[in-house]
Amino acid sequence: MSHNSFGHLFRVTTWGESHGPALGAVVDGCPPGLRFTLEDIQVWLDKRKPGQSRFVTQRREDDLVKVLSGVMPQEDGSMITTGTPISLMIENTDQRSKDYGEIAHQYRPGHADYTYDVKYGIRDYRGGGRSSARETAARVAAGGIARLVMPGVTIRGALVQIGTHKIDRNNWDWAEVGNNPFFAPDPKIVPVWEEYLDGIRKAGSSVGAVVEVVAEGVPAGLGAPIYAKLDQDIASLLMSINAVKGVEIGNGFGAAEITGEENADQMRMGNDGKPLFLSNHAGGILGGISTGEPIVARFAIKPTSSILTERQSIDAEGRNVDIRTKGRHDPCVGIRAVPVGEAMLACALADHYLRDRGQTGRQRER
Amino acid sequence: MSHNSFGHLFRVTTWGESHGPALGAVVDGCPPGLRFTLEDIQVWLDKRKPGQSRFVTQRREDDLVKVLSGVMPQEDGSMITTGTPISLMIENTDQRSKDYGEIAHQYRPGHADYTYDVKYGIRDYRGGGRSSARETAARVAAGGIARLVMPGVTIRGALVQIGTHKIDRNNWDWAEVGNNPFFAPDPKIVPVWEEYLDGIRKAGSSVGAVVEVVAEGVPAGLGAPIYAKLDQDIASLLMSINAVKGVEIGNGFGAAEITGEENADQMRMGNDGKPLFLSNHAGGILGGISTGEPIVARFAIKPTSSILTERQSIDAEGRNVDIRTKGRHDPCVGIRAVPVGEAMLACALADHYLRDRGQTGRQRER
Amino acid sequence: MSHNSFGHLFRVTTWGESHGPALGAVVDGCPPGLRFTLEDIQVWLDKRKPGQSRFVTQRREDDLVKVLSGVMPQEDGSMITTGTPISLMIENTDQRSKDYGEIAHQYRPGHADYTYDVKYGIRDYRGGGRSSARETAARVAAGGIARLVMPGVTIRGALVQIGTHKIDRNNWDWAEVGNNPFFAPDPKIVPVWEEYLDGIRKAGSSVGAVVEVVAEGVPAGLGAPIYAKLDQDIASLLMSINAVKGVEIGNGFGAAEITGEENADQMRMGNDGKPLFLSNHAGGILGGISTGEPIVARFAIKPTSSILTERQSIDAEGRNVDIRTKGRHDPCVGIRAVPVGEAMLACALADHYLRDRGQTGRQRER
Amino acid sequence: MSHNSFGHLFRVTTWGESHGPALGAVVDGCPPGLRFTLEDIQVWLDKRKPGQSRFVTQRREDDLVKVLSGVMPQEDGSMITTGTPISLMIENTDQRSKDYGEIAHQYRPGHADYTYDVKYGIRDYRGGGRSSARETAARVAAGGIARLVMPGVTIRGALVQIGTHKIDRNNWDWAEVGNNPFFAPDPKIVPVWEEYLDGIRKAGSSVGAVVEVVAEGVPAGLGAPIYAKLDQDIASLLMSINAVKGVEIGNGFGAAEITGEENADQMRMGNDGKPLFLSNHAGGILGGISTGEPIVARFAIKPTSSILTERQSIDAEGRNVDIRTKGRHDPCVGIRAVPVGEAMLACALADHYLRDRGQTGRQRER
Repeated sequence: MSHNSFGHLFRVTTWGESHGPALGAVVDGCPPGLRFTLEDIQVWLDKRKPGQSRFVTQRREDDLVKVLSGVMPQEDGSMITTGTPISLMIENTDQRSKDYGEIAHQYRPGHADYTYDVKYGIRDYRGGGRSSARETAARVAAGGIARLVMPGVTIRGALVQIGTHKIDRNNWDWAEVGNNPFFAPDPKIVPVWEEYLDGIRKAGSSVGAVVEVVAEGVPAGLGAPIYAKLDQDIASLLMSINAVKGVEIGNGFGAAEITGEENADQMRMGNDGKPLFLSNHAGGILGGISTGEPIVARFAIKPTSSILTERQSIDAEGRNVDIRTKGRHDPCVGIRAVPVGEAMLACALADHYLRDRGQTGRQRER
Repeated sequence: MSHNSFGHLFRVTTWGESHGPALGAVVDGCPPGLRFTLEDIQVWLDKRKPGQSRFVTQRREDDLVKVLSGVMPQEDGSMITTGTPISLMIENTDQRSKDYGEIAHQYRPGHADYTYDVKYGIRDYRGGGRSSARETAARVAAGGIARLVMPGVTIRGALVQIGTHKIDRNNWDWAEVGNNPFFAPDPKIVPVWEEYLDGIRKAGSSVGAVVEVVAEGVPAGLGAPIYAKLDQDIASLLMSINAVKGVEIGNGFGAAEITGEENADQMRMGNDGKPLFLSNHAGGILGGISTGEPIVARFAIKPTSSILTERQSIDAEGRNVDIRTKGRHDPCVGIRAVPVGEAMLACALADHYLRDRGQTGRQRER
Repeated sequence: MSHNSFGHLFRVTTWGESHGPALGAVVDGCPPGLRFTLEDIQVWLDKRKPGQSRFVTQRREDDLVKVLSGVMPQEDGSMITTGTPISLMIENTDQRSKDYGEIAHQYRPGHADYTYDVKYGIRDYRGGGRSSARETAARVAAGGIARLVMPGVTIRGALVQIGTHKIDRNNWDWAEVGNNPFFAPDPKIVPVWEEYLDGIRKAGSSVGAVVEVVAEGVPAGLGAPIYAKLDQDIASLLMSINAVKGVEIGNGFGAAEITGEENADQMRMGNDGKPLFLSNHAGGILGGISTGEPIVARFAIKPTSSILTERQSIDAEGRNVDIRTKGRHDPCVGIRAVPVGEAMLACALADHYLRDRGQTGRQRER
Repeated sequence: MSHNSFGHLFRVTTWGESHGPALGAVVDGCPPGLRFTLEDIQVWLDKRKPGQSRFVTQRREDDLVKVLSGVMPQEDGSMITTGTPISLMIENTDQRSKDYGEIAHQYRPGHADYTYDVKYGIRDYRGGGRSSARETAARVAAGGIARLVMPGVTIRGALVQIGTHKIDRNNWDWAEVGNNPFFAPDPKIVPVWEEYLDGIRKAGSSVGAVVEVVAEGVPAGLGAPIYAKLDQDIASLLMSINAVKGVEIGNGFGAAEITGEENADQMRMGNDGKPLFLSNHAGGILGGISTGEPIVARFAIKPTSSILTERQSIDAEGRNVDIRTKGRHDPCVGIRAVPVGEAMLACALADHYLRDRGQTGRQRER
């Protein structure tokens, strides 16, 4: 059982709160013999790091990751995995706990305050404690390890919708994702989103978004029906991200609207003698098993619940209160969810990759 | 690990293929002391049973469930659970395996034929074998047990969309669901769907759909962050249903389009002295934990991939072939997915209900 | 979580009671492409079957196993596994429930009657219900599947002690195990045990025993430290067998009595260029990982608690009672534990074999 | 799946190597609302700490534990658990990695060197890396948390045998355990062991031992048949301790030697109106479920494999070598296994305690 763990052969356990001394992840099951540098992991944390533009929270965290176990340090500064658990730690440095004193006994609408109190009878109110999106730093670190596991697999994500403003998929250019503060693959949407989000931000409001994550180079045959389907495990991990309210694979909810003729991807033998799908409505998964086509998943993030407008709520003593959430927050938490979604997809794939091939058998035969 | 199992304290393992002698489920972790009759389980199987209208497959199966273990038979014909695993078996009776001979070596587009062959190198092609939606009979039987576990919880489902035809939510009436062959909660949509689906059926085509499942009376406090969130586990189980391509909780993808002011559910103390949510955009779950409001989930089912129109594909020997799927099939498999979705929701909730309360401690103290 | 399941990649779930209609096992994770006949499984059940000599219970059960799923039947009567769950069922035929009416409310000393009642508040008293050693038939069937998984691995067991009468290990001859009703590897102990057990049996008494199970041909490298050590998982499964009170690996408790010089197995390169252990005190496992030497485990079985001598106990209403257990029972339940121990060892090894190599990756590459 | 985790509702994941920067445990599933101080955990680590007498390794580690998450710090310096994962870290301070350079490519007999290399193809040879008994510090810290979970349960351990020298059970006095460097409950054995172990130590040799751990105050009803039996889980965890080769419950292997009349514990109603067992051969467990009597388990620890006598072995390149193990080691590693065994028993019981009662349901109702 796994309140704070996920995966089976590639198994990640995260720990830590928003305002504790540190947070981290233990990655268990990483195959031995993989060489990497700290920078290979840090690069993903930097992508998720707060304070990088005016559209995300102004909390300042360096989010420097430490590797405490599971590797043999090499003379060139790199590390080689040994097959033992990799403990990753990120220290919290910029905690302004005083921001939260007022809400220690009040339930912020849309947050987990009420439900944590109901469930546990005690709650670390400082920055949302364990329910803070800060926990996703640990996921991103673990995702960095997951990426090492699968040679030839590329995992990328992009923001495809903010509020009702969607990208034009005809403009999709992966190279553009790094050129704007939104991870937008469509350069033409950038000024639209900038103007829209500036308005949201200045109003002390927030808005939802949709993220798309894609894995290319995934071998056919990953996933284990009936209850360890690849799409099921991807859905589970994406839904576990803070504020996510919907997940779809391939054409997703769009599949409900079309006919069997339109939806089912036809096949032909390719010129290279390999099976070829003529389309990818399935998002790379049939019967819970990867087809070899790109894995495509999308998830919807609700608007940040922390807003400056006064809202009706109650407190722990059962009194009606009106709350305005102070503290530093993201006007659109969906932006920073892009690297988190990538990490979750990487972890899900790494887990099924190892289930299929075993943790160490392959290594031994090389 | 659990290729064919799900749940932790309420744990279900299913087995069986479309054209084997039988299929079934082992339900492990059901608390002792629950009294039920065979009819209490059979009623849900009857709801899912094929051949009940022209809009579903004409395969005829009685789907009679047997209870092989885990209960003490009582003199009045009822049974009482003992806390040991409950083995449920449904025998297959109407198997027309000859329908499938032709496709033994051909990959039907949209089906799991290709991926099973890639993964396993062998495939029970008869009716899709393990990948057949027939496996969901076992889920529905297990769901019948799950419903016994939680006193006061009501779990219901309805079809809310076929193709682009959506119900009018203002007309929602749960009492109507049993009055039409679609599990439609809106009586006005019924003639529209009838006409539309008749066209689809006669054309040998198929179409997708959206199902909504709702659980009322769920106590606040179920669900275990961070990686055993209630919404995560619901999403996982709904996505595991055959042909499901998307899942959402509460307002789901709609949450991406609105602001924090619109989305976060405000609270007030109710006249009964209990906390009251003024809306339920969250679908009854905050921070992965139930709020006490109704749990609301929707899932999108792709159109049945078995259609009479000839489609391009390949065979196991790597030759291009054109396939027209024969056999008996559902023009809209989404209809029969309603009781399956209910069962999955029931199982997810029963599991978290027991995690919270323990398997037997409560019983002992009564 | 797994009240009634064990294993991870080779995962077995058993169900059924002593006096229900049937019992069985679902074997999940068996690799595809393995060909076997019903006889390949039945042979192990026949070995465990009651009523085969005067030294075991006179209950008569054919214990015929049925395979309900997970295989493609072949024209020659054999079956090939498909990678989907294999459902094995054994129907109960010789149930004399009336034997047990008297003890429905009395707690037999040494049995699980009291603890089941305390835990569950209800108990299937007929033949001990789920706590009956009859459940081990399902284990033995599953073990038959497990043996198919590992080519070149031989798993055998023998009885090495009854009461204080131990075999002479110098006489060990595996070929003798099938030549006597005790699975004794030492033909000289047979008349001793016969005379001793005849006395026990006629006195309506019972006695304990020790079983040794050995796996040869196990590749080096199986087992996953720190908490999925091969010896740990073997100990867990052997301890799960009814009436087992102790487990040891290699020289076991004997290791406590000797020095490091005596205990640690030295190594040399063999003439075949392979590493060679000069002894096997470790029982084939170092640091939780197999060495390539034979895996050797022993377990102690307590005397059958069902005896004809009157014993002091209480009943469910809290009254003192004196009980004499009727019904048919084994004077030395350790005898029939031999095939059960073999099955548990086979399952533990199959699980780790697949963890190491993956469920299907190897198959695909052939 | 759980290479480096154990437990289900009380779930512990450990990480770290002998000579890495730190090691630790993440304890997931600890109920909320438990107040403790750092000293409550440190006390158990101090008991296990090396360098406390001439009979254990002279490595000097303070083994100071830090709590990095899962608690709300209180003004008085204590902490209250919040139900979120508790991350415990112990920094390594006295690492003499240079001691191990020579054996980087040689396989020490009796150690995990060979098997780790076979399995992983890479090995942290510094102090045995992950296979070092230093990992047990993390277990002991986790055990400290486990003890908090069960009010009224007392868990104690003692050394009962070194080599062939056994304590006299008639002299058993728990109060004596803290009065000698062996955790011996029999003061008369102390001079015997001192003299014997001094000889072993001076000879650069080592010897095995047997530890007994006892839990009193355990409520009846813990444990979940058939494959999550309490004795099974205790055996699994005790066998997972480094160097353990045998485990027994109650009279253990002794049960094999006696009759049903002698072995089965009779019952009577006590004067307090509660069920009373007249003996405890079962070691507090029947049918895998606790009886309410003390849980009694013993485990055998092999002699430390690190000895000064030259031994035959091979190196990673397949050459014969003769090895004499340098470095600081325990002449009888069984001594320091006492607090480790206690910790494992505490964790197993805490897990089943929570399975029975649920993680949080009870708390909410107080």
